[in-house]
Amino acid sequence: MLATVLHAPGDVRYEDVPEPVIQKPTDAIIKLSASCICGSDLWPYRGLNAVSQPLQMGHEYCGVVVAVGEAVKTVKPGQFVVGSFCLSDNTCPHCRHGFQSSCEQVEFMTGAQAPYARVPLADGTLVATDGMPDDDLIPSLLAVSDVLGTGWYAADAARVRPGSSVVVVGDGAVGLMGVLAAKQMGAERIIAMSRHKPRQALALEYGATHIVSERGAEGARVIKDLTGGVGADSVLECVGTQESMSQALESTRPGGSIGYVGVPHGVTFDGQQLFFAQRNMLGGPAPVRRFLPHLMDLVLRREIDPGKVFDLQIPIADVSEGYKAMDERRAIKTLLRV
Amino acid sequence: MLATVLHAPGDVRYEDVPEPVIQKPTDAIIKLSASCICGSDLWPYRGLNAVSQPLQMGHEYCGVVVAVGEAVKTVKPGQFVVGSFCLSDNTCPHCRHGFQSSCEQVEFMTGAQAPYARVPLADGTLVATDGMPDDDLIPSLLAVSDVLGTGWYAADAARVRPGSSVVVVGDGAVGLMGVLAAKQMGAERIIAMSRHKPRQALALEYGATHIVSERGAEGARVIKDLTGGVGADSVLECVGTQESMSQALESTRPGGSIGYVGVPHGVTFDGQQLFFAQRNMLGGPAPVRRFLPHLMDLVLRREIDPGKVFDLQIPIADVSEGYKAMDERRAIKTLLRV
Repeated sequence: MLATVLHAPGDVRYEDVPEPVIQKPTDAIIKLSASCICGSDLWPYRGLNAVSQPLQMGHEYCGVVVAVGEAVKTVKPGQFVVGSFCLSDNTCPHCRHGFQSSCEQVEFMTGAQAPYARVPLADGTLVATDGMPDDDLIPSLLAVSDVLGTGWYAADAARVRPGSSVVVVGDGAVGLMGVLAAKQMGAERIIAMSRHKPRQALALEYGATHIVSERGAEGARVIKDLTGGVGADSVLECVGTQESMSQALESTRPGGSIGYVGVPHGVTFDGQQLFFAQRNMLGGPAPVRRFLPHLMDLVLRREIDPGKVFDLQIPIADVSEGYKAMDERRAIKTLLRV
Repeated sequence: MLATVLHAPGDVRYEDVPEPVIQKPTDAIIKLSASCICGSDLWPYRGLNAVSQPLQMGHEYCGVVVAVGEAVKTVKPGQFVVGSFCLSDNTCPHCRHGFQSSCEQVEFMTGAQAPYARVPLADGTLVATDGMPDDDLIPSLLAVSDVLGTGWYAADAARVRPGSSVVVVGDGAVGLMGVLAAKQMGAERIIAMSRHKPRQALALEYGATHIVSERGAEGARVIKDLTGGVGADSVLECVGTQESMSQALESTRPGGSIGYVGVPHGVTFDGQQLFFAQRNMLGGPAPVRRFLPHLMDLVLRREIDPGKVFDLQIPIADVSEGYKAMDERRAIKTLLRV
């Protein structure tokens, strides 16, 4: 079959690869209903992560099960499923604590920018719907797999509560999903830091009450003004640079919480600064599996519409253009029709 | 009057200083019932913090009010009071969130290794007892002011709950108070990391269920064994070095929490390591004021006996020997009789 392979920074191709097959009794094979490109795919695409060998790309997925290994019990061929980008057994102690992204058997999904994909640890990773969802819900169900699950985790880690004041640092797809999550969790004030008109518009649509286009010290000052001189209760860090992390720290009140989900690149913290800042901090790859049933339910009941984050939809054969559009920030997030 | 002054590393003197007077309408003057030496006093004593001018030492205190400024409303002369080492107004937004150690007006207490001391922000800092406490309770009430309040905050920040597994890194006075706090909060398994027999004995008395004398990778391995291969729910970091912080990180399960109260000296964190470790972290100077009424009540009802942490009691005139005994780890904590 044809699938997406990254050969070197900037060099992504839709080319022939072997069809996925059951390799372990805990595997499932799914036929994807749609696929997409993640902000984190841009790290190797931009050469910020090393590319030592061709990589089959894609870790966000939903679709129909076509085959399962003999040990798989909870899903069967013909069912529509959504899974997390983190593959987990969902039975180990870390999974039972709700941190499936630190599962003792954790693997990261790959090869999902393709018509078919192998999902290891299917029982612990996939959640099936009761019936076949309407076609128009596919983008939103696909979003649950990573981008919404990650934005949701950022809000959860930042302890957003009814009435909270919230700042979202980063107007990428994850940040926008963080706005949606904060709104769902009952936040009263949701401040989205964004400089881009289309993203500002989507942030407002998802529930942002304020847009702040300033950054750095000036951005922190505006946040202070918007939070009674105090700083926000909860800050969602959705970028992963030293600047964005500093922005998050400066935007939080003492005793407030930062949920950081942008994979840190070149970020260091000074222990004594963190100590006196007195911020709660929790980050990491999102344990999307914990949230999957709830988020799928919200989508199926049409209470949320995370699929709107896909502002570019193209055939998967044009995947190279999809990467380029996101790299150049012409697209927030690209959906690949398979 | 005579009071404790640090002139240079290793050079602490009990010498003549001006008597404290009301300087602001929000001040109180107290006659100390007892004073003591803090582990953090050893940082400048050891030359690890700069000493650019003579410092009047001491920030832990309890005693009887002898004078108040005209704005002071909640305490009056004749009352017995305990205060936090962090002076706070207890009315600003940070105080109302329970983070008095980040009060908008925060100051740090000084000059309490003396017979009399000035307490700024008296209304927001001091809590009075109903009557005069029994003499034998003075060490425990004094402990509330910082060392117990700090150990308590470590357990609170590390989210100790009924049934939690807890590791305490550091067997100094704060660590031992952390053990006491974890026990009070209902922890099921309390693992004290200690190599010193008298401290191990006190840890066991305060509620430790296990003692681990190993450190580093071997220490982390033993902790894993004692927590079903998982790591602890809650870890109290009570030292403040890179080694102790690494020990704390390695001893916590993913999704578990670290409360760090040892002032970090030379500690840095790598953002990506912290991210993938997926630990909750909250540190800072303890907002003792939040816990004062509860902890004083526990002492007055004789439910806890934190005063046992003072294993050396000497007249304040011998304060120099008290510093030396703690510096050489001959004493866990020194009480100064005034």
